[in-house]
Amino acid sequence: MALVVIGGVAAGLSAAARARRISPDLEIVVLEKGPVISYGACGLPYFVEGRVLEANHLIVYTPEYFRKQRNIDVRTGARVVAISHPRREVTLESGAHVRYEHLVVATGARCDTCGPGSLPPHVFTLHTLDDATRLRAFLREKQPRNGVVVGAGYIGLEAADALRRNGLRVTVLERSQHLLLRSDDWWTAQVRKQLADHGVEVRCGVDVRSLDSPAVDFPADVVVLAAGFKPNVELAAQAGVEIGRSGAIRTDDRMETNLRGVFAAGDCAEVGHLVTGRPTWIPLSTTANKAGRVAGANAAGGRERFAGIVGTSIVGIFGKAFASTGLTAVQARAEGFSPVAVQVEAKSKPGYFGGSKTGVELVADRATHKLLGGSVVGEDGAAGRIDVIATALHAGMRVDQFEQLDLAYSPPFATVWDPLLIAAQQMMKEL
Amino acid sequence: MALVVIGGVAAGLSAAARARRISPDLEIVVLEKGPVISYGACGLPYFVEGRVLEANHLIVYTPEYFRKQRNIDVRTGARVVAISHPRREVTLESGAHVRYEHLVVATGARCDTCGPGSLPPHVFTLHTLDDATRLRAFLREKQPRNGVVVGAGYIGLEAADALRRNGLRVTVLERSQHLLLRSDDWWTAQVRKQLADHGVEVRCGVDVRSLDSPAVDFPADVVVLAAGFKPNVELAAQAGVEIGRSGAIRTDDRMETNLRGVFAAGDCAEVGHLVTGRPTWIPLSTTANKAGRVAGANAAGGRERFAGIVGTSIVGIFGKAFASTGLTAVQARAEGFSPVAVQVEAKSKPGYFGGSKTGVELVADRATHKLLGGSVVGEDGAAGRIDVIATALHAGMRVDQFEQLDLAYSPPFATVWDPLLIAAQQMMKEL
Repeated sequence: MALVVIGGVAAGLSAAARARRISPDLEIVVLEKGPVISYGACGLPYFVEGRVLEANHLIVYTPEYFRKQRNIDVRTGARVVAISHPRREVTLESGAHVRYEHLVVATGARCDTCGPGSLPPHVFTLHTLDDATRLRAFLREKQPRNGVVVGAGYIGLEAADALRRNGLRVTVLERSQHLLLRSDDWWTAQVRKQLADHGVEVRCGVDVRSLDSPAVDFPADVVVLAAGFKPNVELAAQAGVEIGRSGAIRTDDRMETNLRGVFAAGDCAEVGHLVTGRPTWIPLSTTANKAGRVAGANAAGGRERFAGIVGTSIVGIFGKAFASTGLTAVQARAEGFSPVAVQVEAKSKPGYFGGSKTGVELVADRATHKLLGGSVVGEDGAAGRIDVIATALHAGMRVDQFEQLDLAYSPPFATVWDPLLIAAQQMMKEL
Repeated sequence: MALVVIGGVAAGLSAAARARRISPDLEIVVLEKGPVISYGACGLPYFVEGRVLEANHLIVYTPEYFRKQRNIDVRTGARVVAISHPRREVTLESGAHVRYEHLVVATGARCDTCGPGSLPPHVFTLHTLDDATRLRAFLREKQPRNGVVVGAGYIGLEAADALRRNGLRVTVLERSQHLLLRSDDWWTAQVRKQLADHGVEVRCGVDVRSLDSPAVDFPADVVVLAAGFKPNVELAAQAGVEIGRSGAIRTDDRMETNLRGVFAAGDCAEVGHLVTGRPTWIPLSTTANKAGRVAGANAAGGRERFAGIVGTSIVGIFGKAFASTGLTAVQARAEGFSPVAVQVEAKSKPGYFGGSKTGVELVADRATHKLLGGSVVGEDGAAGRIDVIATALHAGMRVDQFEQLDLAYSPPFATVWDPLLIAAQQMMKEL
């Protein structure tokens, strides 16, 4: 009786690979609906941009690799249409059945800006390798002049960057009043300025529900839909898997669902948030890989826990990093904290080593003085700095502890008072 | 009755500035033996190299700034020759006395490779702005061809880098078998390779105690002495201040010495080490600034604690960063731990964003699974990565917790499995 994994990208393949390590003899089958597996979905915008020259450069492993090197049976074009947990089997579109003892659901998410239905030829999503390949070909062949991106999340703004670098006029339409998924005015102002400085127009408060809507009545030779990201939970839900309040699959800290022996991980599943202590749905490939690994270990008979996430992410827009982790003040208030937020701007390193201004925002709780979240915006060192805040959130650190962190300093790399520490000093005055 | 601070560089000025914040009306006097204050000592090698064009670009604040903007009486050329704590006064070389209510000793350290005595004209230390100015002038005027650096610590190797970039043949002599102050073979091999790749010769096991020693019988047109770093404690010791086992001034976590009202901070003082729980002497400007700040706050009537350090440092050698924090396995064993060390090499980010190989070493305790230390070697992102390890050390994190850190990922900045996480996975197999 096999371990069956539905989905052959980040979470699914992490689960399969980890299960193989735990159990050398287990039969493992991975069912992927698409034509390829194991592609770096986060690299798609850079293929559209032209920085990645070939789509297949983004493919990390082939089914053959998994078959030969890991003894894992990976099947592409294998779309699962039903799960029968009482019979411990899944049904493929072809009508075939595959029996399982343990199941890992890693069905991912989809971009569903305008609901189901086929898209006009100049309208694209940017979710699969095929999406990116078609968009890249369209840009080359049709030489569009005006691009519209719907949605100002990571993929939307990376797509805007890629289109702009290909010479298009670009307009981004965003339903909310905030950019890059963060309910924070300081952050949004930083993102807005960077887009404006590079000639990208942004319109907030524009709700695009249909391609016939007046909101998309722009001169758009090409449209990228990058809003309405939704977890693919229908298959699991129909089989009786519980869906959480976020709309994604509910799991425990072993990544097991309410159905014994059925695990879920990746963009289709919730995970625990270490700051709020509650289940959350923040689809990111880092989380997919980590949670998939835990799901695979447990599905193969191990006993591992997924600690949870703090929601760390980073995105590069025209050479500047926008990194964030934990809660915004708005989110923190909604969770019952008494948030205090501070923002500082300080040099990342000395001018003679090319240091530039780095913006840091910290959010802390007035009652406990614990850090709740933060963001870092800058041209160098933002990834490391957000990771320090993320590590502090994992540890439940207070601001007075964070303020004294023994961070590395030498002129080529940092300043003696790192922007993080200056922000913490500022926070100490406010608490 | 004044707060008197002996020393006008990192710790002394941090103390004075912080005291002013705590107590707006306190009389504050800073006594600096040299001609300038507030210079970035860590920038001296980059002035020697020529990257920093003028020595005074390294001066952050002038005495006038402190007088006018902070109402702090900063006196240069004011060498203190005695402290009489019963009389609460210090005596200057000029014979003048300055009375104090609270005293902060921030007398720094010195490079004492060959003991006291004046040096021949082609032999330099690299500790003060004047040292660097004279060495830079010597390089320009004498155009030396062969350089010898004594000591393979931070300053020694930064000096070797600077001399090499000025076209000299460079030989580094180091007494121990390890480079960059870290008793670790993996680390030393990495440093040795980088030096060799850039044409710097290294000889370990060479103990230079005198400039007449056969060991310095090299063709040396210029010699930089950067070994035998010692805390300047004589003044304090003569006044009855207790010296710790490291040879530096013993303090409590308020940075107060055994003499009530006498504080010490910076390169002359011990601080607590968070991993060992014991006093340690690791002279670094980050620590000097933080501990100075705490000393100044408490000397002005505040009540602040210095949490302690984990010994984080970073140095750039020919464009590659060598960063470390916490204990090596050798140090950990000496402290009674059961250390396990792992080393991995992994890409810092995808090749299409210029990622390069990053080496990570982690040291953990077999008994508790707690992290004890680590090092990171690489061309990009090493500062952020070592800061993550440092933050984990502050938090007393276990490897299984560290392994699941929610670190930022996006192709321009990192890989989905960061080298830190790969190292932690490797460690989990070993524990």
